[in-house]
Amino acid sequence: MKFFSDNAARACPEVLDAVVAANDVTDGSYDGDSISARLDGVFGEFFGTECTVFPVSTGTAANALALASMVPPWGAVICHEEAHIQVDEAGAPEFFTAGAKLILARGEGAVLSPDSVAQAVAALRGDVHQVQAGALSITQATEYGRVYAPAQVAALSEDARARGWRVHMDGARLANALVHMDCHPGDVTWRAGVDVLSFGCIKNGGMSAEALVFFDKDLARSIPHRRKRAGQTPSKGRFAAAQLIAMIESGAWQRNARAANDSAQALARAAGDRLMHPVEANEVFVRVGVEGAARLREQGFDFYDWGDAGSGEARLVMAWDSDPAHVKALAAALEALG
Amino acid sequence: MKFFSDNAARACPEVLDAVVAANDVTDGSYDGDSISARLDGVFGEFFGTECTVFPVSTGTAANALALASMVPPWGAVICHEEAHIQVDEAGAPEFFTAGAKLILARGEGAVLSPDSVAQAVAALRGDVHQVQAGALSITQATEYGRVYAPAQVAALSEDARARGWRVHMDGARLANALVHMDCHPGDVTWRAGVDVLSFGCIKNGGMSAEALVFFDKDLARSIPHRRKRAGQTPSKGRFAAAQLIAMIESGAWQRNARAANDSAQALARAAGDRLMHPVEANEVFVRVGVEGAARLREQGFDFYDWGDAGSGEARLVMAWDSDPAHVKALAAALEALG
Amino acid sequence: MKFFSDNAARACPEVLDAVVAANDVTDGSYDGDSISARLDGVFGEFFGTECTVFPVSTGTAANALALASMVPPWGAVICHEEAHIQVDEAGAPEFFTAGAKLILARGEGAVLSPDSVAQAVAALRGDVHQVQAGALSITQATEYGRVYAPAQVAALSEDARARGWRVHMDGARLANALVHMDCHPGDVTWRAGVDVLSFGCIKNGGMSAEALVFFDKDLARSIPHRRKRAGQTPSKGRFAAAQLIAMIESGAWQRNARAANDSAQALARAAGDRLMHPVEANEVFVRVGVEGAARLREQGFDFYDWGDAGSGEARLVMAWDSDPAHVKALAAALEALG
Amino acid sequence: MKFFSDNAARACPEVLDAVVAANDVTDGSYDGDSISARLDGVFGEFFGTECTVFPVSTGTAANALALASMVPPWGAVICHEEAHIQVDEAGAPEFFTAGAKLILARGEGAVLSPDSVAQAVAALRGDVHQVQAGALSITQATEYGRVYAPAQVAALSEDARARGWRVHMDGARLANALVHMDCHPGDVTWRAGVDVLSFGCIKNGGMSAEALVFFDKDLARSIPHRRKRAGQTPSKGRFAAAQLIAMIESGAWQRNARAANDSAQALARAAGDRLMHPVEANEVFVRVGVEGAARLREQGFDFYDWGDAGSGEARLVMAWDSDPAHVKALAAALEALG
Repeated sequence: MKFFSDNAARACPEVLDAVVAANDVTDGSYDGDSISARLDGVFGEFFGTECTVFPVSTGTAANALALASMVPPWGAVICHEEAHIQVDEAGAPEFFTAGAKLILARGEGAVLSPDSVAQAVAALRGDVHQVQAGALSITQATEYGRVYAPAQVAALSEDARARGWRVHMDGARLANALVHMDCHPGDVTWRAGVDVLSFGCIKNGGMSAEALVFFDKDLARSIPHRRKRAGQTPSKGRFAAAQLIAMIESGAWQRNARAANDSAQALARAAGDRLMHPVEANEVFVRVGVEGAARLREQGFDFYDWGDAGSGEARLVMAWDSDPAHVKALAAALEALG
Repeated sequence: MKFFSDNAARACPEVLDAVVAANDVTDGSYDGDSISARLDGVFGEFFGTECTVFPVSTGTAANALALASMVPPWGAVICHEEAHIQVDEAGAPEFFTAGAKLILARGEGAVLSPDSVAQAVAALRGDVHQVQAGALSITQATEYGRVYAPAQVAALSEDARARGWRVHMDGARLANALVHMDCHPGDVTWRAGVDVLSFGCIKNGGMSAEALVFFDKDLARSIPHRRKRAGQTPSKGRFAAAQLIAMIESGAWQRNARAANDSAQALARAAGDRLMHPVEANEVFVRVGVEGAARLREQGFDFYDWGDAGSGEARLVMAWDSDPAHVKALAAALEALG
Repeated sequence: MKFFSDNAARACPEVLDAVVAANDVTDGSYDGDSISARLDGVFGEFFGTECTVFPVSTGTAANALALASMVPPWGAVICHEEAHIQVDEAGAPEFFTAGAKLILARGEGAVLSPDSVAQAVAALRGDVHQVQAGALSITQATEYGRVYAPAQVAALSEDARARGWRVHMDGARLANALVHMDCHPGDVTWRAGVDVLSFGCIKNGGMSAEALVFFDKDLARSIPHRRKRAGQTPSKGRFAAAQLIAMIESGAWQRNARAANDSAQALARAAGDRLMHPVEANEVFVRVGVEGAARLREQGFDFYDWGDAGSGEARLVMAWDSDPAHVKALAAALEALG
Repeated sequence: MKFFSDNAARACPEVLDAVVAANDVTDGSYDGDSISARLDGVFGEFFGTECTVFPVSTGTAANALALASMVPPWGAVICHEEAHIQVDEAGAPEFFTAGAKLILARGEGAVLSPDSVAQAVAALRGDVHQVQAGALSITQATEYGRVYAPAQVAALSEDARARGWRVHMDGARLANALVHMDCHPGDVTWRAGVDVLSFGCIKNGGMSAEALVFFDKDLARSIPHRRKRAGQTPSKGRFAAAQLIAMIESGAWQRNARAANDSAQALARAAGDRLMHPVEANEVFVRVGVEGAARLREQGFDFYDWGDAGSGEARLVMAWDSDPAHVKALAAALEALG
């Protein structure tokens, strides 16, 4: 019974069917087909504003392309010290930006605030001897499954704009955050000042495509070149576009995220005061203890240990298709830990 | 009736079925699933030697990663002046290698020879003021649909080795070349001195994955890092692996390529002495004339003009699923040109 | 008696004295000293227009920074196939531009024309699958010691502008060209459409600084960052600035170049019809023959063989301080070749 | 009376004389002259082991080239969060390494320990999703003027080696540290496990050249190419080599550093308990207070405020040629602060 990651899960039927259906649409290659042509409109309607959408094959590529569009090689992006772009993308931001730096900020639950951002850049004097801060990147929901409310995003964006920065949102789990907040997708993105968004689909029942969404047309201008140059412009683009469109139009984005979130809530309740962070998306961080972790594994539950070695912390991730029976069993096992 | 490209075509049923079947295999994420685990073995058997295989989302990424594994940033790769990596990859080689140069060689039909390679590097003195040549890249079949016989590849590889270079083969249409020559896949690749191969699947009935195949384990060592860093490590890797395995194991690679090659031969016969290059794969270059091109388009045939503006040259590309009726009609139309 | 290069020569007294004098000017570090503060004004007066000047330690750095200011990483610079930036800078352009390509054009004596430029870019369609041409780089005087007249530069610049490109001039030997043409420095640079100029000083009696001169303030904006990031912002900047200012203000730029040019003319006359290219600067290309080369070397003359091995071609370079007696002796030896 | 930096100071007579004397040595260009030929031997004798030495024009270039020789683009270098390479080199490390990351460690006075290094890399799992740590970089003397004893360097190096890392020392102020410790130069560098050293000369009475010193020949192998490609291979290389050789052979490295250190000690005594860090080189950090800073400035003393705005902290830097009278006056003024 695996709770490692939302990456091993299946693709949901809506997405798989869309891929199969796209096969017979042979009216164009690269982005020239009729399915790809619908992308901007579909996302535009979803978010409530004009969007420029680019399918890419991974969230890492989406993030790195986004950052590259916002800062020059001598620039810097401010992000949380545990942000995925800093910790788990093998230096993709540095690769795509041709060497921009990530300046690390702090915050409980990987949540940033204008204060923590200010602290992170306090040492920057703005002169030519240093990199030039040019963008803020926040993860929604965060790496600890926390969610920024629209007002929080707006405060960060406003602060960023005052500094002359652009704003990127790594929305690998944005769908989970939207479901949690039950708000309009635009409220916590462009209306709250976000310029570019990596809209996560794969973790939420997708298959092999993520959406890189620009709310700012100017920022998007270099992307066709950067994307092609990065080997991220698929020649049979319709297969990627179809996945993204299906995720949105069928409402699967919401159903899938809701299912994962609900499973997470069940575990949150079971974890009781062993819970390390509020559960606002589909990840649950529990202090199970070293022995507790061993016991859970003996019972057949798989998950990642978290934090420092021997911390006894565990990260449990719910997928859109996590088996309710397994979730129930794990909840019981967590309660049984005492 | 489109003959633009083999990129708009459908994915063949073997590949599509494999993708659907892969959905329920949830035993791992990234490359950790049981389907991905079979890749090296399947390709190893196909080529007749140990292989290290990495699925990537485009041929551009495959080529660029291959080149990056072979030369340092101050290095250079020798290729034909009309090689796809030079002309149509938007600088991906320069991006992935962190600035290595492509040194251009010549040859009719985009075919290289040890002589043309020698000419290309004649100006390199080997001192520190210049880039250091470190690899040769050939395209099989070439950008003009020509095929290198095993002895030709061997001669080029031997010459490259004597110079201390590695050898890369851009096999976007390797399947078509193999069918044309009816030889063992190993004969024109590793046995002929090729170190790294971009094995094209998408153009040959694939969907969204290409195979980057290393015959040299050492060369492959940096690829897991480079690939992840380039956003080319899909989290649900089984969907890509399944496509590549299906292409090989089902024999679709051969059937599809044969179909495309046969269509091309039909057009070659019809083109008569308007044919500009021998047809040895699935591309046909015909001097239709400016008026002839207009007439063909009036009749509903779509294709790319080739060469300089007003040259009256056309490139016709056959796909694995080109409609035989359309091919027949085009053949007739070509003959009718006189 | 060495005629290899103008790089082994001495620094002229005006430059050396300026370096010594600069030692006691301790009113600032980096570019903040009073000597550096004069740079823009001195060059502005010299060229007859507002200039933004950056001292760098090599011509390679000047060229690479110039190119980086003009094209994005997915861009391309058109230059002659034997341009110094293509052949002898070890890939510095690709390094500083983060991977832009050099597209090679042809021309006798390494001289470009609008026609040869057009031919070089004929294969560029302007779509996203290809690099985006964005600049033209010409060398004045060329790598074969040829000189572009103002009208020639203007024609190339006009053509470049019509294409939306910027124009760079590699003026490693600009001083020699100016002396040959006896024209105002502005006439063959900014007035003729040049945006950025690498103004060569080291080969012309300088010591350790070259001037990167921008005639376009906007283009210069990223340079302080790029320069610092490249380790090209000296902390005791006054020593570099002093050299450049002395070269200009003392008139040494002209005297030195005239001396070298005159020596070259003497050899040109002596070479008779063995001369391979008109001599318009300080380099002389002579077909001495393989035996002739050996004989000259026996007599103690040192020089580089040119062209393909066994071509019997030689490149003789005059420095500002080439010993007149040596020059006379070499002239006699050339005549004696018959 | 300026105490901003050791960068505005004069070049010492030994160095200036060497530059003047080098002018007439015209036996080679680039590194081919007889002065440059002596570099390895001179530094080899100085350090007591075989060295490979490359002159470069700035400490930034020396550091960045060093790092590039040690880690691949997907690599990482561990350094202090206030290290010069992290804070004041405008992203040069990221540029030269093609995107490697700097992983930041902590420590009072910018001093690292095996513990703080361990903490910095605790989050690295060693898998392909992350950058691969490959080197440690320490600054000697540190950015706060603290000095690592040989045993401290050895402990860090041993720990680094156990991790499979290489070790770089940013010795911008190494001379000051050597004088403070009165130890053999080899004791705190190669004998203590350092692989590559940026040996600072400019701040210590030099003019326009720093020495990049490799104690490991293999690591040095890529540097000729990287250096040329970065525009850091001067064509009249002897002028740079002469400065470095003079600094060592004349003993100026020691005299100059001693003078600066002594001045710093005088201020340290005067600062009393306002002193923020032990003074072990030529920098003095004093809590002068906001009003105290204003008073000092009114008296004509110039220096940088340090730390956060309004902290009242000051950084005073002594140069090799700081006027003893000025130092005395500042000491008195510091005491007068009370």
